[in-house]
Amino acid sequence: MKNERPLILISNDDGITSKGISELVKSLRPLGDLVVMAPDRARSGAACALTVTDPIHYQLLRQEPGLMAYKCSGTPTDCVKLAFHTVLQRKPDLVVGGINHGDNSSVNVHYSGTMGVVIEGSLKGVPSIGFSLCDHSPNADFTPALPYIRRIAAGVLEHGLPPLTCLNVNFPVGELKGARICTQTRGEWTNEWEHFAHRGDAHYYWLTGDYVNCETENEQSDHWALDHGYVAITPVTVDATAYQLMDQLDYLLHE
Amino acid sequence: MKNERPLILISNDDGITSKGISELVKSLRPLGDLVVMAPDRARSGAACALTVTDPIHYQLLRQEPGLMAYKCSGTPTDCVKLAFHTVLQRKPDLVVGGINHGDNSSVNVHYSGTMGVVIEGSLKGVPSIGFSLCDHSPNADFTPALPYIRRIAAGVLEHGLPPLTCLNVNFPVGELKGARICTQTRGEWTNEWEHFAHRGDAHYYWLTGDYVNCETENEQSDHWALDHGYVAITPVTVDATAYQLMDQLDYLLHE
Repeated sequence: MKNERPLILISNDDGITSKGISELVKSLRPLGDLVVMAPDRARSGAACALTVTDPIHYQLLRQEPGLMAYKCSGTPTDCVKLAFHTVLQRKPDLVVGGINHGDNSSVNVHYSGTMGVVIEGSLKGVPSIGFSLCDHSPNADFTPALPYIRRIAAGVLEHGLPPLTCLNVNFPVGELKGARICTQTRGEWTNEWEHFAHRGDAHYYWLTGDYVNCETENEQSDHWALDHGYVAITPVTVDATAYQLMDQLDYLLHE
Repeated sequence: MKNERPLILISNDDGITSKGISELVKSLRPLGDLVVMAPDRARSGAACALTVTDPIHYQLLRQEPGLMAYKCSGTPTDCVKLAFHTVLQRKPDLVVGGINHGDNSSVNVHYSGTMGVVIEGSLKGVPSIGFSLCDHSPNADFTPALPYIRRIAAGVLEHGLPPLTCLNVNFPVGELKGARICTQTRGEWTNEWEHFAHRGDAHYYWLTGDYVNCETENEQSDHWALDHGYVAITPVTVDATAYQLMDQLDYLLHE
């Protein structure tokens, strides 16, 4: 088995036709055999959502030496689960989500379908990385990020990651000064809804929002890194237990 | 302001017509003024998903002293965000998700729309609790859970919770021996897809699965508590940073 090339599963939340996943595939091809199973349409903001009320479907799009690509009607998390069950011949050595068109740092980790891919990979016991560029444009320029992506993926292939952890890697737009290991920035979304009157009914709203950084001076935070031209590498735990709180909750156990 | 009754926002992922949310409302009415904003249909497995590609809509269903109830076309997370933006007259004192029809312990915390409600409440700076019963039946018997729910909600109203933390509370079926403060069980889902041939196309699959507990002997884990008749109170962090990993990633920073 050790003579095999690494096997890398790729998915995203912008859909199989997005530029970001295409750039990711090109960037990672030298590192191993790639299997792509990505949503057949945009699934931004899908988080770790599952499709539970309907069957889902996948279809082969591209087959060549070192690359198999499929589209899938499910969510990003469905894509990972379904690839493990169907098209992957063995457990992959790496799961990669992205490259996302848009910022997944700070609290966005909770809403991100890209990180849905990564969290699922990690829950399945595979080292997993999400890559995101802070540019929503469909034609965003991923060029400066690509050498970092290849290097980070190669590093994780070599060193692995501890169980129940994964990486959330975000790139600022433009020239990159280097990379930093970061914490998840404390921040919040405000002004989240744009109001639409529709057929005389006033209760229609469309999600939008302004991000507010609540710790702009924290040089260890991922948003600080992005604001200052650095790649933000934020290690993420999929063990959500708040251990520090466990011995403060005795009041809940007694009448 | 201190003379006001507590204001409690309630949502779920089983939808506004489910028995679980109705039981939750009945149980919490003595504790404060309730605002319910819940999905207009089942949204199980929605995690922290957002509706980004379409506007969403809400509608008043019920208005009486101490209770306003709305249905919403969005996800559980949308419901919380939209309630904050529209129908809540002030920041609530508590956000509660549930009572879910089904187990949200262990890794299910990542897929749960109930916990989507709770994580969103916590990100908005409000103490937040998710309640779930390990019974998917639409007519599940929530009776044994109700005194615990009222006591835990009252306790959190009184004591609060530290920033960026919330509670994931799960109830086993049947008689309850008491409550325990727990960790998120290490577990995994296997056999996750049921195969459906459809119109001669072999690539349709429907999500199902068998849960495997990877640490059955861990008496601190939430699944152990549930397996032994205890209410499992698992404190959850919404700061997903894997702090213990931060000083092990230097290899990613250099050529």
